Amino acid sequence: MNVREVTRDDFDCIWPIFHEIVAAGDTYAYPRDTTREQALKLWLDAPRKTFLFEKDGQVLGTYYIKTNQAGPGEHVCNCGYMVASAARGQGLATTMCEHSQEIARELGYKAMQFNFVAASNEGAVRLWNKLGFATVGRLPQAFQHPSRGYVDALVMYKWLEAGA
Amino acid sequence: MNVREVTRDDFDCIWPIFHEIVAAGDTYAYPRDTTREQALKLWLDAPRKTFLFEKDGQVLGTYYIKTNQAGPGEHVCNCGYMVASAARGQGLATTMCEHSQEIARELGYKAMQFNFVAASNEGAVRLWNKLGFATVGRLPQAFQHPSRGYVDALVMYKWLEAGA
Repeated sequence: MNVREVTRDDFDCIWPIFHEIVAAGDTYAYPRDTTREQALKLWLDAPRKTFLFEKDGQVLGTYYIKTNQAGPGEHVCNCGYMVASAARGQGLATTMCEHSQEIARELGYKAMQFNFVAASNEGAVRLWNKLGFATVGRLPQAFQHPSRGYVDALVMYKWLEAGA
Repeated sequence: MNVREVTRDDFDCIWPIFHEIVAAGDTYAYPRDTTREQALKLWLDAPRKTFLFEKDGQVLGTYYIKTNQAGPGEHVCNCGYMVASAARGQGLATTMCEHSQEIARELGYKAMQFNFVAASNEGAVRLWNKLGFATVGRLPQAFQHPSRGYVDALVMYKWLEAGA
Protein backbone atom coordinates (compact mmCIF):
# COMPACT_ATOMS: atom_id res chain seq x y z
CA MET A 1 0.00 0.00 0.00
CA ASN A 2 1.24 3.47 -0.90
CA VAL A 3 0.68 6.54 1.29
CA ARG A 4 1.03 10.09 0.01
CA GLU A 5 -0.29 13.60 0.40
CA VAL A 6 -3.37 14.37 -1.65
CA THR A 7 -3.24 16.82 -4.57
CA ARG A 8 -6.28 18.51 -6.07
CA ASP A 9 -6.02 16.14 -9.05
CA ASP A 10 -6.77 13.26 -6.68
CA PHE A 11 -10.15 14.59 -5.69
CA ASP A 12 -11.97 12.67 -8.44
CA CYS A 13 -10.98 9.49 -6.58
CA ILE A 14 -11.81 10.88 -3.12
CA TRP A 15 -15.16 12.47 -3.85
CA PRO A 16 -17.08 9.14 -4.28
CA ILE A 17 -15.79 7.97 -0.88
CA PHE A 18 -16.61 11.29 0.77
CA HIS A 19 -20.03 11.49 -0.84
CA GLU A 20 -21.10 7.97 0.13
CA ILE A 21 -20.07 8.43 3.76
CA VAL A 22 -21.44 11.95 4.20
CA ALA A 23 -24.74 11.26 2.40
CA ALA A 24 -25.40 8.44 4.89
CA GLY A 25 -25.49 11.10 7.63
CA ASP A 26 -24.52 8.83 10.51
CA THR A 27 -20.88 9.79 11.14
CA TYR A 28 -19.67 13.19 9.90
CA ALA A 29 -20.74 16.69 10.93
CA TYR A 30 -21.17 17.74 7.33
CA PRO A 31 -24.53 18.33 5.59
CA ARG A 32 -25.72 15.16 3.87
CA ASP A 33 -26.07 17.14 0.63
CA THR A 34 -22.54 18.58 0.75
CA THR A 35 -21.49 19.35 -2.82
CA ARG A 36 -18.26 18.26 -4.49
CA GLU A 37 -17.01 21.86 -4.36
CA GLN A 38 -17.77 22.18 -0.63
CA ALA A 39 -16.18 18.78 0.01
CA LEU A 40 -12.99 19.89 -1.73
CA LYS A 41 -12.77 22.89 0.58
CA LEU A 42 -13.53 20.84 3.70
CA TRP A 43 -11.26 17.90 2.97
CA LEU A 44 -8.34 19.52 1.09
CA ASP A 45 -8.27 23.28 1.57
CA ALA A 46 -9.20 23.78 5.23
CA PRO A 47 -6.96 21.09 6.74
CA ARG A 48 -3.24 21.45 7.24
CA LYS A 49 -2.50 18.22 5.35
CA THR A 50 -4.57 15.49 3.67
CA PHE A 51 -3.27 11.99 2.90
CA LEU A 52 -4.49 9.11 0.81
CA PHE A 53 -3.78 5.39 0.98
CA GLU A 54 -3.81 3.58 -2.36
CA LYS A 55 -3.18 0.09 -3.72
CA ASP A 56 -3.00 -0.90 -7.40
CA GLY A 57 -4.07 2.63 -8.34
CA GLN A 58 -7.23 2.48 -6.19
CA VAL A 59 -7.80 4.95 -3.33
CA LEU A 60 -8.73 2.87 -0.27
CA GLY A 61 -8.79 5.59 2.37
CA THR A 62 -8.03 9.21 3.17
CA TYR A 63 -7.61 11.41 6.20
CA TYR A 64 -6.97 15.05 7.05
CA ILE A 65 -5.10 16.66 9.92
CA LYS A 66 -5.70 20.21 11.13
CA THR A 67 -5.28 22.42 14.18
CA ASN A 68 -8.34 21.98 16.38
CA GLN A 69 -8.40 25.36 18.15
CA ALA A 70 -6.23 28.39 17.41
CA GLY A 71 -4.08 30.39 19.82
CA PRO A 72 -4.06 28.76 23.29
CA GLY A 73 -5.35 25.51 21.75
CA GLU A 74 -3.01 25.25 18.79
CA HIS A 75 -0.99 22.35 20.26
CA VAL A 76 -4.00 20.03 19.79
CA CYS A 77 -4.87 18.65 16.35
CA ASN A 78 -7.99 17.10 14.89
CA CYS A 79 -8.23 14.39 12.23
CA GLY A 80 -10.99 12.84 10.13
CA TYR A 81 -10.70 9.46 8.41
CA MET A 82 -12.66 7.88 5.55
CA VAL A 83 -12.36 4.31 4.26
CA ALA A 84 -13.75 3.28 0.86
CA SER A 85 -16.61 0.82 1.28
CA ALA A 86 -14.69 -1.81 -0.72
CA ALA A 87 -11.75 -1.56 1.72
CA ARG A 88 -13.59 -1.93 5.04
CA GLY A 89 -12.75 -4.57 7.62
CA GLN A 90 -9.07 -4.69 6.74
CA GLY A 91 -7.65 -2.52 9.49
CA LEU A 92 -7.19 0.54 7.35
CA ALA A 93 -8.72 2.93 9.92
CA THR A 94 -6.15 1.69 12.43
CA THR A 95 -3.33 2.14 9.92
CA MET A 96 -4.51 5.66 9.07
CA CYS A 97 -4.97 6.68 12.71
CA GLU A 98 -1.49 5.45 13.62
CA HIS A 99 -0.03 7.25 10.59
CA SER A 100 -1.84 10.44 11.59
CA GLN A 101 -0.40 10.29 15.11
CA GLU A 102 3.13 10.10 13.65
CA ILE A 103 2.41 13.05 11.36
CA ALA A 104 0.91 14.95 14.29
CA ARG A 105 4.09 14.49 16.32
CA GLU A 106 6.21 15.56 13.32
CA LEU A 107 4.11 18.72 13.00
CA GLY A 108 4.65 19.47 16.68
CA TYR A 109 1.19 18.69 18.03
CA LYS A 110 0.98 17.40 21.58
CA ALA A 111 -2.52 15.93 21.56
CA MET A 112 -5.24 14.80 19.16
CA GLN A 113 -8.96 15.43 19.65
CA PHE A 114 -12.07 14.10 17.94
CA ASN A 115 -14.84 16.62 18.58
CA PHE A 116 -17.97 14.87 17.50
CA VAL A 117 -18.05 11.07 17.45
CA ALA A 118 -21.64 9.78 17.29
CA ALA A 119 -22.12 7.50 20.29
CA SER A 120 -24.10 5.23 17.95
CA ASN A 121 -20.95 4.68 15.89
CA GLU A 122 -19.85 1.93 18.24
CA GLY A 123 -17.20 0.48 15.93
CA ALA A 124 -15.40 3.82 15.77
CA VAL A 125 -15.64 4.42 19.52
CA ARG A 126 -14.21 0.94 20.22
CA LEU A 127 -11.40 1.48 17.73
CA TRP A 128 -10.39 4.90 19.06
CA ASN A 129 -10.44 3.48 22.60
CA LYS A 130 -8.17 0.64 21.50
CA LEU A 131 -5.80 3.18 19.95
CA GLY A 132 -5.49 5.10 23.20
CA PHE A 133 -8.18 7.76 22.92
CA ALA A 134 -10.20 8.47 26.06
CA THR A 135 -13.78 9.65 26.02
CA VAL A 136 -13.39 13.04 27.73
CA GLY A 137 -16.80 14.48 26.93
CA ARG A 138 -20.35 13.45 26.16
CA LEU A 139 -22.66 15.96 24.42
CA PRO A 140 -26.27 15.02 25.19
CA GLN A 141 -28.37 14.53 22.06
CA ALA A 142 -25.96 16.60 20.01
CA PHE A 143 -26.01 14.28 16.97
CA GLN A 144 -29.13 13.92 14.88
CA HIS A 145 -28.91 10.38 13.52
CA PRO A 146 -30.90 9.65 10.34
CA SER A 147 -32.73 6.65 11.85
CA ARG A 148 -32.19 6.81 15.63
CA GLY A 149 -33.03 10.49 16.17
CA TYR A 150 -30.93 12.50 18.63
CA VAL A 151 -28.02 10.51 20.01
CA ASP A 152 -25.13 11.69 22.17
CA ALA A 153 -21.86 12.75 20.60
CA LEU A 154 -18.54 11.95 22.25
CA VAL A 155 -15.39 14.02 22.53
CA MET A 156 -12.33 11.77 22.39
CA TYR A 157 -8.77 12.80 23.21
CA LYS A 158 -5.25 11.43 23.30
CA TRP A 159 -2.08 13.06 24.59
CA LEU A 160 0.64 12.16 22.09
CA GLU A 161 3.86 12.87 23.89
CA ALA A 162 5.63 9.84 25.28
CA GLY A 163 5.54 9.74 29.07
CA ALA A 164 2.95 12.50 29.39
CA MET B 1 -29.12 49.88 27.51
CA ASN B 2 -29.70 49.32 23.81
CA VAL B 3 -29.21 45.97 22.05
CA ARG B 4 -28.86 45.61 18.31
CA GLU B 5 -27.22 43.59 15.60
CA VAL B 6 -23.71 44.68 14.68
CA THR B 7 -22.94 46.23 11.29
CA ARG B 8 -19.48 46.45 9.76
CA ASP B 9 -19.42 50.16 10.63
CA ASP B 10 -19.54 49.22 14.32
CA PHE B 11 -16.28 47.33 14.21
CA ASP B 12 -14.20 50.37 15.18
CA CYS B 13 -15.94 50.23 18.56
CA ILE B 14 -15.65 46.44 18.90
CA TRP B 15 -12.04 45.99 17.85
CA PRO B 16 -10.51 47.58 21.02
CA ILE B 17 -12.60 45.21 23.19
CA PHE B 18 -11.72 42.19 21.06
CA HIS B 19 -8.04 43.10 20.92
CA GLU B 20 -7.63 43.63 24.66
CA ILE B 21 -9.31 40.31 25.52
CA VAL B 22 -7.61 38.22 22.84
CA ALA B 23 -4.14 39.71 23.37
CA ALA B 24 -4.35 38.64 27.04
CA GLY B 25 -4.47 35.02 25.80
CA ASP B 26 -6.26 33.58 28.80
CA THR B 27 -9.80 33.06 27.48
CA TYR B 28 -10.31 32.84 23.70
CA ALA B 29 -9.03 30.26 21.22
CA TYR B 30 -7.77 32.94 18.89
CA PRO B 31 -4.10 33.81 18.32
CA ARG B 32 -2.99 36.58 20.67
CA ASP B 33 -1.75 38.57 17.67
CA THR B 34 -5.03 38.28 15.74
CA THR B 35 -5.23 41.27 13.40
CA ARG B 36 -8.17 43.63 13.03
CA GLU B 37 -8.96 42.12 9.63
CA GLN B 38 -8.94 38.56 11.02
CA ALA B 39 -11.03 39.67 13.99
CA LEU B 40 -13.64 41.14 11.67
CA LYS B 41 -13.94 37.79 9.89
CA LEU B 42 -14.07 35.80 13.15
CA TRP B 43 -16.51 38.04 14.99
CA LEU B 44 -18.76 39.38 12.21
CA ASP B 45 -18.44 37.32 9.04
CA ALA B 46 -18.20 33.72 10.27
CA PRO B 47 -21.04 33.82 12.84
CA ARG B 48 -24.70 33.70 11.97
CA LYS B 49 -25.46 36.88 13.93
CA THR B 50 -23.47 39.29 16.09
CA PHE B 51 -25.00 41.66 18.65
CA LEU B 52 -23.77 44.65 20.61
CA PHE B 53 -24.97 46.19 23.86
CA GLU B 54 -24.50 49.95 24.12
CA LYS B 55 -25.26 52.74 26.53
CA ASP B 56 -24.84 56.47 25.90
CA GLY B 57 -23.16 55.65 22.58
CA GLN B 58 -20.55 53.41 24.23
CA VAL B 59 -20.25 49.72 23.30
CA LEU B 60 -20.23 47.76 26.57
CA GLY B 61 -20.35 44.24 25.24
CA THR B 62 -20.79 42.04 22.19
CA TYR B 63 -21.51 38.42 21.37
CA TYR B 64 -21.85 36.17 18.33
CA ILE B 65 -24.03 33.14 17.71
CA LYS B 66 -23.26 30.45 15.14
CA THR B 67 -23.99 26.82 14.33
CA ASN B 68 -21.51 24.67 16.22
CA GLN B 69 -21.37 21.62 13.94
CA ALA B 70 -22.93 21.25 10.49
CA GLY B 71 -25.26 18.51 9.27
CA PRO B 72 -26.19 16.13 12.10
CA GLY B 73 -25.04 18.73 14.65
CA GLU B 74 -26.76 21.80 13.21
CA HIS B 75 -29.38 22.00 15.99
CA VAL B 76 -26.65 23.04 18.47
CA CYS B 77 -25.30 26.58 18.48
CA ASN B 78 -22.17 28.17 19.89
CA CYS B 79 -21.74 31.69 21.28
CA GLY B 80 -18.86 33.88 22.36
CA TYR B 81 -19.20 36.92 24.63
CA MET B 82 -16.94 39.90 25.27
CA VAL B 83 -17.41 42.63 27.86
CA ALA B 84 -15.52 45.95 27.68
CA SER B 85 -13.13 46.29 30.63
CA ALA B 86 -14.94 49.45 31.77
CA ALA B 87 -18.24 47.54 31.95
CA ARG B 88 -17.17 44.50 33.97
CA GLY B 89 -18.82 43.43 37.23
CA GLN B 90 -22.25 44.74 36.24
CA GLY B 91 -23.90 41.51 35.16
CA LEU B 92 -23.53 42.17 31.44
CA ALA B 93 -22.26 38.65 30.69
CA THR B 94 -25.42 37.27 32.28
CA THR B 95 -27.59 39.68 30.28
CA MET B 96 -25.85 38.76 27.04
CA CYS B 97 -25.98 35.02 27.69
CA GLU B 98 -29.71 35.17 28.48
CA HIS B 99 -30.29 37.28 25.35
CA SER B 100 -28.33 34.77 23.27
CA GLN B 101 -30.45 31.89 24.54
CA GLU B 102 -33.60 33.72 23.43
CA ILE B 103 -32.09 34.39 20.01
CA ALA B 104 -30.97 30.76 19.79
CA ARG B 105 -34.52 29.55 20.38
CA GLU B 106 -35.84 32.04 17.80
CA LEU B 107 -33.34 30.69 15.27
CA GLY B 108 -34.51 27.15 15.98
CA TYR B 109 -31.52 25.85 17.92
CA LYS B 110 -32.19 23.20 20.56
CA ALA B 111 -28.97 23.43 22.55
CA MET B 112 -25.98 25.71 23.13
CA GLN B 113 -22.39 24.52 23.50
CA PHE B 114 -19.19 26.22 24.63
CA ASN B 115 -16.31 24.20 23.19
CA PHE B 116 -13.27 25.54 24.94
CA VAL B 117 -13.67 27.22 28.34
CA ALA B 118 -10.31 27.46 30.13
CA ALA B 119 -10.73 25.71 33.49
CA SER B 120 -8.62 28.54 34.95
CA ASN B 121 -11.35 31.01 33.97
CA GLU B 122 -13.24 30.26 37.17
CA GLY B 123 -15.54 33.25 36.99
CA ALA B 124 -16.83 32.18 33.59
CA VAL B 125 -17.27 28.55 34.63
CA ARG B 126 -19.22 29.62 37.72
CA LEU B 127 -21.39 31.96 35.67
CA TRP B 128 -22.20 29.41 32.96
CA ASN B 129 -23.05 26.86 35.66
CA LYS B 130 -25.38 29.37 37.29
CA LEU B 131 -27.05 29.98 33.92
CA GLY B 132 -27.77 26.27 33.48
CA PHE B 133 -24.76 25.03 31.53
CA ALA B 134 -23.36 21.65 32.56
CA THR B 135 -19.70 20.72 32.20
CA VAL B 136 -20.00 17.78 29.80
CA GLY B 137 -16.35 17.45 28.88
CA ARG B 138 -12.87 18.12 30.18
CA LEU B 139 -9.96 18.30 27.71
CA PRO B 140 -6.74 17.56 29.58
CA GLN B 141 -4.14 20.31 29.18
CA ALA B 142 -5.80 21.54 26.00
CA PHE B 143 -5.44 25.24 26.85
CA GLN B 144 -2.02 26.88 26.96
CA HIS B 145 -2.42 29.65 29.52
CA PRO B 146 0.06 32.56 29.28
CA SER B 147 1.15 32.28 32.93
CA ARG B 148 -0.11 28.90 34.22
CA GLY B 149 1.06 26.70 31.33
CA TYR B 150 -1.20 23.91 30.11
CA VAL B 151 -4.56 23.91 31.86
CA ASP B 152 -7.65 21.83 31.11
CA ALA B 153 -10.39 23.19 28.86
CA LEU B 154 -14.04 22.49 29.58
CA VAL B 155 -16.89 21.73 27.22
CA MET B 156 -20.13 23.22 28.55
CA TYR B 157 -23.61 22.49 27.27
CA LYS B 158 -27.22 23.46 27.82
CA TRP B 159 -30.35 22.02 26.26
CA LEU B 160 -32.60 24.99 25.51
CA GLU B 161 -36.01 23.50 24.95
CA ALA B 162 -38.40 23.81 27.83
CA GLY B 163 -39.12 20.51 29.49
CA ALA B 164 -36.24 18.71 27.81
